[in-house]
Amino acid sequence: MSRRRQIYEGKAKILYEGPEPGTIIQYFKDDATAFNNQKKGTINGKGVLNNRISEHIFTLLGQIGVPTHFIRRLNMREQLVRQVEIVPIEVIVRNVAAGTLSKRLGIEEGTPLPRTILEYCYKDDALGDPMISDEHIACFGWASQEEMHEISDMAIRVNDFLSGLFAGIGIRLVDFKLEFGRVWENDFSRIILADEISPDGCRLWDMKSNEKLDKDRFRRDLGGEVEAYQEVARRLGLMPEDGGGPDTVLNLDEARKARAKD
Amino acid sequence: MSRRRQIYEGKAKILYEGPEPGTIIQYFKDDATAFNNQKKGTINGKGVLNNRISEHIFTLLGQIGVPTHFIRRLNMREQLVRQVEIVPIEVIVRNVAAGTLSKRLGIEEGTPLPRTILEYCYKDDALGDPMISDEHIACFGWASQEEMHEISDMAIRVNDFLSGLFAGIGIRLVDFKLEFGRVWENDFSRIILADEISPDGCRLWDMKSNEKLDKDRFRRDLGGEVEAYQEVARRLGLMPEDGGGPDTVLNLDEARKARAKD
Ligand SMILES: Nc1ncnc2c1ncn2[C@@H]1O[C@H](COP(=O)(O)OP(=O)(O)O)[C@@H](O)[C@H]1O
Ligand SMILES: Nc1ncnc2c1ncn2[C@@H]1O[C@H](COP(=O)(O)OP(=O)(O)O)[C@@H](O)[C@H]1O
Ligand SMILES: [Mg+2]
Ligand SMILES: [Mg+2]
Repeated sequence: MSRRRQIYEGKAKILYEGPEPGTIIQYFKDDATAFNNQKKGTINGKGVLNNRISEHIFTLLGQIGVPTHFIRRLNMREQLVRQVEIVPIEVIVRNVAAGTLSKRLGIEEGTPLPRTILEYCYKDDALGDPMISDEHIACFGWASQEEMHEISDMAIRVNDFLSGLFAGIGIRLVDFKLEFGRVWENDFSRIILADEISPDGCRLWDMKSNEKLDKDRFRRDLGGEVEAYQEVARRLGLMPEDGGGPDTVLNLDEARKARAKD
Repeated sequence: MSRRRQIYEGKAKILYEGPEPGTIIQYFKDDATAFNNQKKGTINGKGVLNNRISEHIFTLLGQIGVPTHFIRRLNMREQLVRQVEIVPIEVIVRNVAAGTLSKRLGIEEGTPLPRTILEYCYKDDALGDPMISDEHIACFGWASQEEMHEISDMAIRVNDFLSGLFAGIGIRLVDFKLEFGRVWENDFSRIILADEISPDGCRLWDMKSNEKLDKDRFRRDLGGEVEAYQEVARRLGLMPEDGGGPDTVLNLDEARKARAKD
C-alpha cells in the first residue's frame, strides 16, 4: 500500500487522506478511553468489530434514506467515507436513564424516560465536552437553526430505526452518540451522518439479563469487553456461529463477498 | 403582629402565609450563600436592600405589562406577593460571558456574547441545580411547551427592559436569574414572574470601571458587598443622596409615602 497522509489521530480512530478528493479513510484502533481521556486501555479486536458494526449500521441507515458519510469498507480496520466539515456537537439520544443523565438529574439507571431526550455537547476534549443547548449553538454559530432541525430530525429517525434493529435481536438501545457533518455541493451545504455507530458510543443492554454489551464494561471495569462487542456483532449476523475471534468477522465476510461474485 | 405560619425557609428568604388566601409574604434575610450552599455568610442590610430593589424592578416590569407576583412592600424586609406554583426551573439570561458559562465553554469573562443566551437549570439544591434544556423539561413535564414559550418570551422582555434600566445608570447587565410560577384562574393556569430580582441573582458591572456591584463580591471575597448593593440602590434612586445605611432606604421611602398621603 502506498504511503498516505495522516490527517488526524483521535482517541479511537485515525483519519487518512482518501484516494479521491473529498474522501477520507477511517482507521479503527483498539484504543479505548473513558471519562474524557482519564482512563485509557486497549480492547483487543475492538477496531475490527467497530469497523464492521458501523459499516453494517450505516449501510442500513442509508437504505432508509438517512444520508451518511459511509462509502465502503476497505479492509478489516478501514472504511472509506466522504470527508465532511464536522459539526462540533455530539448529539446524545437517550431512551432510558443512564450515565451522566442519571447522575446529573438523580434518576436511577435503567428508568425508562417518559420520552426520548436529545442532548447536545460541545465537542472539545479540553473542556470535557460540556453540555450545551440550542441557545449556545445559535449564539456561537456552531450550526444554523436549519441545520439543527436537520440534525434533530435525523437523530430521531436513527433512534427509531436502531431501537427496532436492536429490539429485534434482544437488545435495549439505552442511549447513543451521533456526529454530523456538512458537505458542500455547488455553494450549498447539507448535513450528513458521520463518524461511527458502535458499542463504543452506544449503551446496549441485553433485554433479558440487562447485561451491558457496550463500552460501560470498560468504563466500569466489568471485564469481557471483547466478548460483549462480539456478541453485538454476532446478533447483528456479522459473526460466524462458531464464534471465532474478531478477525473471523471479516474473513467470513470476505468469503461471502468472494462467493457472491462467483 | 399576629403569629404567622412559616411556609418555607430558603437560602435568602423566608416565606410566610399571607393575610389573604393565595398570597404569601417574602421576608428577605441577610444570609448569603454561594457555590450551591458550600459558602455561607451574612451581608448586613442585604435583605432590606434586596426587598427594596426587587420591589422597584417588579413594579417597573408590571408597568410594561410583564405579569409578576408582586403586590406591595409591607415593611423593610417584607413584601406581599401572589402565591404561585413555582416552575422548578431557574432561567438564566446572559448578555456577556461570565461565571459558569465562561468556565464550561472556555470563554473569557467579559466577552460580549454574539446574542443573548437563555439557560435553564433544574431547581434542586441536592443536585446542584444542573443545567437542562427544553428536552429535559418536556421529558419530565417540568413545564409545558406553551409555558416555556411564555417563559422565554418574558425572559427576553425582562432582559431588554433591565438592560435599558441599568444602562441608564451606568451599569452593564451581564447576566441574571429569573424564576417563574403558575397561577390558576378558573381551571386555567398562566405564568407570572416570581421570586426576586436583586444583586443576589444578577451580575452588574459598572460600565466605566468594570467594578462588580453584585453577589460576585461575596463569592470571590472581594469585600464591599453592602456598599455595592447600596450603590445599585442609590443609582436606581432608592437611597438618600447623603448615603445613609441600608435602613435609610426604607425610612426615606416611608417618609415620601407619608408625605404623598398628606
Ligand atoms: N466523514 C468525516 N470527515 C471528517 N472528519 C470526520 C468524519 N467522520 C468523523 N470525523 C471525525 O474524525 C474523528 C474520528 O476519530 P476519533 O478517534 O473518534 O476522534 P475523537 O477522539 O476526536 O473522538 C472525530 O474527531 C470525528 O469528529
Ligand atoms: N410567589 C411565590 N410563591 C411561592 N413560592 C415562591 C414565590 N416566589 C418565590 N418563591 C420561592 O420561594 C423561595 C424563596 O426563598 P429563597 O431563599 O430564594 O429560596 P431558595 O433557597 O430555594 O432559593 C424560592 O424557593 C422560590 O422558588
Ligand atoms: Mg470519537
Ligand atoms: Mg432563591
